[in-house]
Amino acid sequence: MKSKFIVIEGLEGAGKTTAIDNVAKMLKHRGIKDTVFTREPGGTLLAENLRVLLKRNLEHEKITDKAELLMMYAARVQLVEIVIKPALARGNWVLGDRHDLSSQAYQGGGRCIDSKLIQSLRDTVLGNFKPAITLYLDVPPEIGLERACSRGSLDRIEKESLKFFERVRQRYIELAKTDQSIITIDATQTLPQVTNNIYLILQSWFDRQEKTNEMVSMAQCALSTDS
Amino acid sequence: MKSKFIVIEGLEGAGKTTAIDNVAKMLKHRGIKDTVFTREPGGTLLAENLRVLLKRNLEHEKITDKAELLMMYAARVQLVEIVIKPALARGNWVLGDRHDLSSQAYQGGGRCIDSKLIQSLRDTVLGNFKPAITLYLDVPPEIGLERACSRGSLDRIEKESLKFFERVRQRYIELAKTDQSIITIDATQTLPQVTNNIYLILQSWFDRQEKTNEMVSMAQCALSTDS
Repeated sequence: MKSKFIVIEGLEGAGKTTAIDNVAKMLKHRGIKDTVFTREPGGTLLAENLRVLLKRNLEHEKITDKAELLMMYAARVQLVEIVIKPALARGNWVLGDRHDLSSQAYQGGGRCIDSKLIQSLRDTVLGNFKPAITLYLDVPPEIGLERACSRGSLDRIEKESLKFFERVRQRYIELAKTDQSIITIDATQTLPQVTNNIYLILQSWFDRQEKTNEMVSMAQCALSTDS
Repeated sequence: MKSKFIVIEGLEGAGKTTAIDNVAKMLKHRGIKDTVFTREPGGTLLAENLRVLLKRNLEHEKITDKAELLMMYAARVQLVEIVIKPALARGNWVLGDRHDLSSQAYQGGGRCIDSKLIQSLRDTVLGNFKPAITLYLDVPPEIGLERACSRGSLDRIEKESLKFFERVRQRYIELAKTDQSIITIDATQTLPQVTNNIYLILQSWFDRQEKTNEMVSMAQCALSTDS
């Protein structure tokens, strides 16, 4: 099967790191080697520098919403162009901790930036590049933030209000409803339940991919026999 | 007169710093106090951090053209929102070393990014905010770069090829022809000649501004007498 870009999304404390570990194990189990791991914002020298600027609390200066949005996309286009696309072209699978959906949820939902503006920026910068499948781990912000707090001090974005994260979650849920490639997973369940759900979802996704590939091969075969 | 945003533009080594000093003196001479000076990319804590990232030569990583463009606009929107607009609202004049025209010339002309894409990004991010007048110091790149080289080591952008800077200059010239608020000054002349030109241009610009203000006042007066 052609290599694919799989993304894990969700609020802080939704369990993304564990989910990534589990997806990585499943890929390995299917004989997929040398998976490339990315995180956003970040994943290249420039993008990691932008991540530091985005996460840091600046003294006496508020980062404007538009500057934040543009920096997120600067980091994203750098990662896509110099890491993700080359990896996929080499035949490596890519497993991403966040991608474009985060900007739509955080900057769109959270910061209330017009979704059309974000969509237009996305189209301009990334064209039609998008993940093959996104697993969205849904968790109410109060649960996610409690988990995130227990891990240590919060960064600039994690310090936002509960209302902010409620808007982020709402936008995630809305977007998952309109895009078939985004699968919502109830992340309030126990860890074994979440892991099992991810396993079942990916299993069925792989089956569908293989079926599609088979049908494409058969159609190509039929075409070449006809001619 | 209402406070205004004046910008000095041009290639490296065109003489922007000297021009800014001279414009500042002229403003002071006209009784304009507490002019705010800006430079781009930069001028705020976040924007200066982005400037460092933009100017630095990263080891083993090329900054993609789109990431460069987005970072330039992130720095610009931050500067406009937290420095330039508040200064103008307070009644301070603002004197800028580069502004939006630089992105159109460097990222558009130099990097060959589609000018419609930049225009759309500009409109999205800055709306209809623009300088009242831009003085573009025109100089062939070979002369400008010789001057820039003599000042010390070159940064990532200054290290571009002569062809790159020829495209930048060409775009500056084209844009100056289509926008009446951009005035081209031949910066190959002697320093006293350039200074004298700037003086004459600004003098006539101030005269026009005052005439317009007078006419507006007269019209308002006539309207209030009529009613």
